[in-house]
Amino acid sequence: MLTNRHIVIMGGDARQIEVINKLTALDAHLSLVGFDQLDRNFNGASKVNMDEINAKEVDSIILPVSGTDHEGNVETTFSNETVNLSKEWLAETPEHCTVYSGISTPYLNKVSEDTQREVVKLFARDDVAIYNSIPTVEGTLMMVIQNTDITIHQANVIVLGLGRTGMSIARTFHALGAHVKVGSRNPEQIARAVEMGVKAFYLKELEKEVEDNEICINTIPALVLTSKVLSKMPASSFIIDIASLPGGTDFRYAKKRGIKAMITPGLPGMVAPKTAGRIIANVLTELLLQKFSEEDES
Amino acid sequence: MLTNRHIVIMGGDARQIEVINKLTALDAHLSLVGFDQLDRNFNGASKVNMDEINAKEVDSIILPVSGTDHEGNVETTFSNETVNLSKEWLAETPEHCTVYSGISTPYLNKVSEDTQREVVKLFARDDVAIYNSIPTVEGTLMMVIQNTDITIHQANVIVLGLGRTGMSIARTFHALGAHVKVGSRNPEQIARAVEMGVKAFYLKELEKEVEDNEICINTIPALVLTSKVLSKMPASSFIIDIASLPGGTDFRYAKKRGIKAMITPGLPGMVAPKTAGRIIANVLTELLLQKFSEEDES
Repeated sequence: MLTNRHIVIMGGDARQIEVINKLTALDAHLSLVGFDQLDRNFNGASKVNMDEINAKEVDSIILPVSGTDHEGNVETTFSNETVNLSKEWLAETPEHCTVYSGISTPYLNKVSEDTQREVVKLFARDDVAIYNSIPTVEGTLMMVIQNTDITIHQANVIVLGLGRTGMSIARTFHALGAHVKVGSRNPEQIARAVEMGVKAFYLKELEKEVEDNEICINTIPALVLTSKVLSKMPASSFIIDIASLPGGTDFRYAKKRGIKAMITPGLPGMVAPKTAGRIIANVLTELLLQKFSEEDES
Repeated sequence: MLTNRHIVIMGGDARQIEVINKLTALDAHLSLVGFDQLDRNFNGASKVNMDEINAKEVDSIILPVSGTDHEGNVETTFSNETVNLSKEWLAETPEHCTVYSGISTPYLNKVSEDTQREVVKLFARDDVAIYNSIPTVEGTLMMVIQNTDITIHQANVIVLGLGRTGMSIARTFHALGAHVKVGSRNPEQIARAVEMGVKAFYLKELEKEVEDNEICINTIPALVLTSKVLSKMPASSFIIDIASLPGGTDFRYAKKRGIKAMITPGLPGMVAPKTAGRIIANVLTELLLQKFSEEDES
């Protein structure tokens, strides 16, 4: 249980509702900042402003998936107010106070260093990345079905990268009857693709492999779909780039060549906010329970 | 080959382009009616009006998937002109002239009887229904992903009917990691569901089985999702009814109860016009080649 633990949830979107539900169920004492327009109340949680919170009594801070901007402001879907995590405020929290964010940002790294408060990046964790790949795959399916005039079934599909998300993408498109080919630099990933019953090739062969491509899904966060590669790809191809921003596609050249290419960050929150929220809530709960039980022991 | 065969293609949407491509490749002589706004020309095919065609020289007539309305007019995506298949005109065609339509309509049945010209209903064929289930499934996936805030993965999904389309739906949702339960009246379908590794129940148990439902996909063209059944289903459920019109759902009651329910005819043409067109083109070609080779033999 999280009885008597004071946790501040600063901003965020519908996904945080799952987090709030789960933490109140565990009896945590929650302060919700940036939820004034959310038409719902929770037992054990109060909607407040930052200046109503005594920083000295805060055990944990939960930021949105996107962390903060370069000035420390957080995204607030349910508020028009500016919500800011200032260095001064953070410095007043107890030493054990931990900040949980989806991703790290330069501002967060800086205040973490300056104040010596730990920042946990949930999305850097392998387990979260794998769980998140599930809604990402379904968002990708939706985008592909919407943006092509052929079925995924029997389509020539290239998946670039067989990492935490690429594996889920390749498996799912294979299960839907696509002709899946996985491109990777990594011999282990090539072996895994072969084991899965899909074709595989080394990335250095990419130029040759794209010639009959219909759908290309990139998960590699580096420029792999270069103009040289794109020049060999049929203009009727559809590219969906789900790697971290700025993706791995030369979008300018793709447009010039008439290839429909899109980058779609944030698919989980878009297509399945409830599931995406539960993923975050489950991992956060584990981490919080673990942290406080360690504290109690020490 | 279809050399010297005169085939009239009357109206239709993007799917007919695949039919035109395939038939011209087989050297048929095509008259296209209702394609004046299509910005494309085909070798061996001429865009004409009905009154420019000599009915006595027509070997086959291809209608849109939807057939005709009650006055004999056909849908024309690529024209604003009215295109009509009149009884008088049809009666002038040679006796061997066959009409190909997606579905049958009261008007078509009537003129077929009056003129003694055969009308072939492509979508009544098992093979076409099974091929068409592929884009139907992908359209269903898209609608479900768009209209729910959870992932298909781990969702409680009920599939009603394990026929030509229900089988494809159940297989695919199972492959995506959903908890699939198939409801059917048919012991053979129950056995097949069990063989596939999904749960199965007889339709008479439906009321009890919907209590934890999240997504319900109906393929049975009869009222199965009655108000009594819907009253037991969680209001947060999503129903997609892909049975022939008018579907199998009490939509009025679903709305009253706050259950999101939609009926979506024509998914293949919507999400994958090219594939859907190829399905029609492939079967049509087979039927035409078969018919003319039989004629040549007799």
